Amino acid sequence: MSDPTQRSLPAQEVAAACARILWEGDPASRALGMVIEEVRPGYARLSMPVRADMVNGHRNCHGGFIFTLADSAFAFASNTANYVTVAAGASIDFIAPAKLGDVLSASAEVQAGARRTGIYDIRVDNQAGEPIALIRSRSRQLKEQLITGLEVAR
Amino acid sequence: MSDPTQRSLPAQEVAAACARILWEGDPASRALGMVIEEVRPGYARLSMPVRADMVNGHRNCHGGFIFTLADSAFAFASNTANYVTVAAGASIDFIAPAKLGDVLSASAEVQAGARRTGIYDIRVDNQAGEPIALIRSRSRQLKEQLITGLEVAR
Amino acid sequence: MSDPTQRSLPAQEVAAACARILWEGDPASRALGMVIEEVRPGYARLSMPVRADMVNGHRNCHGGFIFTLADSAFAFASNTANYVTVAAGASIDFIAPAKLGDVLSASAEVQAGARRTGIYDIRVDNQAGEPIALIRSRSRQLKEQLITGLEVAR
Amino acid sequence: MSDPTQRSLPAQEVAAACARILWEGDPASRALGMVIEEVRPGYARLSMPVRADMVNGHRNCHGGFIFTLADSAFAFASNTANYVTVAAGASIDFIAPAKLGDVLSASAEVQAGARRTGIYDIRVDNQAGEPIALIRSRSRQLKEQLITGLEVAR
Repeated sequence: MSDPTQRSLPAQEVAAACARILWEGDPASRALGMVIEEVRPGYARLSMPVRADMVNGHRNCHGGFIFTLADSAFAFASNTANYVTVAAGASIDFIAPAKLGDVLSASAEVQAGARRTGIYDIRVDNQAGEPIALIRSRSRQLKEQLITGLEVAR
Repeated sequence: MSDPTQRSLPAQEVAAACARILWEGDPASRALGMVIEEVRPGYARLSMPVRADMVNGHRNCHGGFIFTLADSAFAFASNTANYVTVAAGASIDFIAPAKLGDVLSASAEVQAGARRTGIYDIRVDNQAGEPIALIRSRSRQLKEQLITGLEVAR
Repeated sequence: MSDPTQRSLPAQEVAAACARILWEGDPASRALGMVIEEVRPGYARLSMPVRADMVNGHRNCHGGFIFTLADSAFAFASNTANYVTVAAGASIDFIAPAKLGDVLSASAEVQAGARRTGIYDIRVDNQAGEPIALIRSRSRQLKEQLITGLEVAR
Repeated sequence: MSDPTQRSLPAQEVAAACARILWEGDPASRALGMVIEEVRPGYARLSMPVRADMVNGHRNCHGGFIFTLADSAFAFASNTANYVTVAAGASIDFIAPAKLGDVLSASAEVQAGARRTGIYDIRVDNQAGEPIALIRSRSRQLKEQLITGLEVAR
């Protein structure tokens, strides 16, 4: 007899359910004006406009906000299998400045996974598709589930 | 005859003058509640409280804000010689989570410099002195000065 | 009248000529048993067998040789436009151990370029196509040419 | 009654015993001419001469060997508590070229540790004390011991 508290769903539905849970618990990303554009297993794309409170005197976006957008995209991409996954570290290369009024898009995609560790590449572009920054992040998967009892159907 | 528009000051006074200029042009760091605790040539220490709009549902600070604090400390440490210096890239290792109400301190110090490129190490601690994250950032020095005509006295 | 010492060739021919020059001046890569499998503009793939003098007591390849293979692939990929290009830095994530007798393949490809700086991703796989390591390297282009007077035809 | 197979020794003696075991199982570091200069808990310093088979046509040391030296120093520093510890990843910043005939020294020191993960900084200098490269490595501690039953005395 199967466990009635256990549910299994297709990978895409699990990913979407995880994104909703994550979004509700992430007021910081919402306050920065981020929008979830797409989520699928191992992948997420978020956008964020560069606002006046994110720029310096030269109207260039503070690098911290570019990283924050990438870090959020990474979080959504790495939490699509219903196991709580956190960032262990990351590296960022700044390619070109982002300007006031730009709309940045960060797409994060899993590159490799071994045991509980994963590598994700995140690319931040502006609205013209020009590269702004490349980020590589490392994930560490915990044992807790985002939604208790939910599994990806095989 | 010396150029009357040219001034030279001790390194510490140049560093302090650069920090004032940078601070005025950095509304983002101010809006995040950062405070400049100390600036000397090649070194800066900034603090920032972890606010409710920086945390997720588990009351852990979004990693992006930890990076942003480190990136600001780096900016103040790398702009102390009156040449505009920007971030080329960085890596971050997260050691322990920062919590709502924590007051984080980021100290940035130059480690090496070659031609126009420098390496800075930034350590983010909480109010108990526990390490939260280690960051290593790369600087690229431009030819423009922050304060035209000001030089470090030799 | 055109400069008779100036030659221009298609990008692929310039890349191949650069690889020959680089290979002649790189006894270290040859001594490690590396083989150039493919070179095109902004891309190179090299292979290397894991020999007895590269492994530790557990027959795992010393991580330094995995990095060295990736660094050589990066050098061939970043020197395809006839301007001397050196490594400014790199990061490596080890995914799985390489074993004695494995034949490793490192493919390096340019991801972004700005002014004289470029970002290259290198992936090291074993003979079964399993990922061994992911490397991201930063290039710095110098003003000297590998072959004086040779330009890429436009 | 205590386990007769269990021994406990002062931290420095455990570190020295671990270094001997590691050295015996590391023919690669020996073949590259490395010498262990110093080992203590969380710290190691190794040296290596830049030989003719490590340089390119410009007599500059291949960056891979600089990384390999740093990676070995990291291995000795991170295996001083008698738990098998491996590299999860690293980043390297090249500061200045190393030349044929230089004797490089790599000192590795633990910076932070959390659960089974540690951060080590490694600095590679030449014989004049000039910085050649800065490396930051991440360790992952396994459950196996280097010397079964040996513990650090408390």
